[in-house]
Amino acid sequence: MERFLSADARVMRSSLIRQLTGLVNRPDVTSFAAGSPNAETFPHEQFTQIYSDLVARDKGKIFQYSVTRGNPELIEAVRDRGQRVKNIVASQEETILASGSQQGMELVSRVLLDPGDAVFVELPNFIGATATFENLRARVVGVRKTESGMDLDDLRAKVRQVRSEGAKPKLIYAIPNFQNPSGHTWSAENRSGLLEVANQEDLLVFEDDAYGELYFSGVAPNDLAPMKPDDGDGRVIHMSTFSKILAPGLRVAWIFGPQEIVRRIELAKETADLCTSTLGQLLILEFLNRGWMEPHVERVRGFYDAKSAAMDRALRNSFTGVARWRKPDGGLFQWVELLGDIDTLKFLHEIIDEHKIAFIPGSPFFVDGSGENTLRLSFSNVSDEKIDAGVGKLGELIRARS
Amino acid sequence: MERFLSADARVMRSSLIRQLTGLVNRPDVTSFAAGSPNAETFPHEQFTQIYSDLVARDKGKIFQYSVTRGNPELIEAVRDRGQRVKNIVASQEETILASGSQQGMELVSRVLLDPGDAVFVELPNFIGATATFENLRARVVGVRKTESGMDLDDLRAKVRQVRSEGAKPKLIYAIPNFQNPSGHTWSAENRSGLLEVANQEDLLVFEDDAYGELYFSGVAPNDLAPMKPDDGDGRVIHMSTFSKILAPGLRVAWIFGPQEIVRRIELAKETADLCTSTLGQLLILEFLNRGWMEPHVERVRGFYDAKSAAMDRALRNSFTGVARWRKPDGGLFQWVELLGDIDTLKFLHEIIDEHKIAFIPGSPFFVDGSGENTLRLSFSNVSDEKIDAGVGKLGELIRARS
Repeated sequence: MERFLSADARVMRSSLIRQLTGLVNRPDVTSFAAGSPNAETFPHEQFTQIYSDLVARDKGKIFQYSVTRGNPELIEAVRDRGQRVKNIVASQEETILASGSQQGMELVSRVLLDPGDAVFVELPNFIGATATFENLRARVVGVRKTESGMDLDDLRAKVRQVRSEGAKPKLIYAIPNFQNPSGHTWSAENRSGLLEVANQEDLLVFEDDAYGELYFSGVAPNDLAPMKPDDGDGRVIHMSTFSKILAPGLRVAWIFGPQEIVRRIELAKETADLCTSTLGQLLILEFLNRGWMEPHVERVRGFYDAKSAAMDRALRNSFTGVARWRKPDGGLFQWVELLGDIDTLKFLHEIIDEHKIAFIPGSPFFVDGSGENTLRLSFSNVSDEKIDAGVGKLGELIRARS
Repeated sequence: MERFLSADARVMRSSLIRQLTGLVNRPDVTSFAAGSPNAETFPHEQFTQIYSDLVARDKGKIFQYSVTRGNPELIEAVRDRGQRVKNIVASQEETILASGSQQGMELVSRVLLDPGDAVFVELPNFIGATATFENLRARVVGVRKTESGMDLDDLRAKVRQVRSEGAKPKLIYAIPNFQNPSGHTWSAENRSGLLEVANQEDLLVFEDDAYGELYFSGVAPNDLAPMKPDDGDGRVIHMSTFSKILAPGLRVAWIFGPQEIVRRIELAKETADLCTSTLGQLLILEFLNRGWMEPHVERVRGFYDAKSAAMDRALRNSFTGVARWRKPDGGLFQWVELLGDIDTLKFLHEIIDEHKIAFIPGSPFFVDGSGENTLRLSFSNVSDEKIDAGVGKLGELIRARS
């Protein structure tokens, strides 16, 4: 069969995190690995009400095909909310829906990247993004980051290096708010600095804001201002999703971007999946129309805020002196850097069978292979009691090795 | 922006049929253009019952992410039904679900086709397939067909021609049952003959069976036997979908194929959309588990059988002497070849404003640009009365030009 495969297919690999799935998702394991939102936050009662009303009104039509760019009313609602909640003004022509932000990622990448083109990502970076770029045989270049964003000097140097090697630097990919995996949030200065580099070096910026609405108490949403509104030059593609704030299984995300690029994304989506699930779009549209979204997101914020606080307490109790961490200001992830010389991937394999605790080792997130002493703890799907016990035990095991 | 686009994006075009959408879908028009199944056939009452039971049992979990390859129980149910209904034996490793067959088409194409690789398609061919191959810059080669299948001599000649030009012949794509757009069904002889050519010429076969279950009275399903069971050599990728027999808006299709290829499809799907809509998969799984599928499909067959008969009656009344057609034995489409020298694309533009009747001109389905005197009439979404009046008027207008 090998002889029939495309060049893309020959390089496709399952990520290390994927390979760990079977190991870390065993039911007897306290898992800080799963990056999914907590199903308790999904408003199933409200969806049920909407479902009944929809089917009474439209009968079978809610199961029919819909248009490629997305339900036109949902596009309007998303544009309206984008302006209200994130201060992004995008025209109809600059807006498209996708079947989840993973599809958005692939569509954006397909219309922009040829094999060998360079994409600049943070160290560490979201695995789903890295895999998307690699599946298209793009060159994924890691850029150092601090807690307040991408190291712009390192970015400049890397761009120039790529260019000097004859490759084409094209895209900067970043999750500026509560990044997966680091939990870090970019400073306003870093955001505008990035746009400056993009302008100077003639690059596009792909701003993935999957987590920006999940800010915790104490954060002024103004700090989370997306890059899009400052984007006089039309260089930013902004993506966000209903997956974390509402429900991922409905598979609906949205993209605001330059009209010319959005038009190509639509053409790519035509053959990628023709249209996004109609039922999913309609459930979300009605949820927005009924004014249920903002109070709902407020509850979701509170839910994760409490979880994050529980985890921070547990870390302070048991990780003090053996690790460095910073409680995130939002999102689903706690990033931890161990002070001792511990390879967290090996460590995971050593402890999981006996102690039934799982996390994601940090190194797969680093495209340059670094980060061996880091790990990601997701707090979204673990009860406060298990956070306490699991993190406690983990701290003990780390301390024994430090 | 142009300078940022990938080579794929630069060739992406909206198909002529897409461009006609606005024109032919006006509410005041009797449209034989829409290829979608009729929403009246979607079992919304049964889905509502299932939805209530699911949410009572699993609450928010029905809105959570699911696994990339597809819900494991639905995969089992699809394998079981594939064996029962189509006599296809496929292992778990040879089975994957996709977010609709359009996604299946793109995933299969992405793992197999490099730019310039040749795909052999029928003349005429399904537009969604042609667009998918073209978006990946494959070379799409049209092969003559008869009412009983692909002309295998022409196929052999085209394969050798492609090879002599230094390109790589890779894939034969076909819809052997009630093809979109021609409505034709391949003979058993043609099916086995195609496999022979594939073996001799070392090609893969992509069998798209979107319509095979929608056979009308008088057809023995044995005639519709898929190529997969005869596929000793592992050359056939078989795809089918719940879109026509159940509901397209749920976006669920399935693929049976060689294990090595299915594994790559799964890797490609990981970055294409991570997972198919969970709710859609669960609605279908329960529908199957409750034994509702076979009686439902039986009703759907009857529905389209009656529509097709109504169209055939109308054609006999008004197209006799000016056109050639054959009532299809299943599916959603009536294909018509005009005897006179009429360009159906021009004809459509001439009549639509005044007479408010629409159809799809045949030429966009022909990758070699032929077929100017053909058209596709879809009977799925038009009432019997409007079929009668619309086809009658159309016949009158054609007669005036013949």
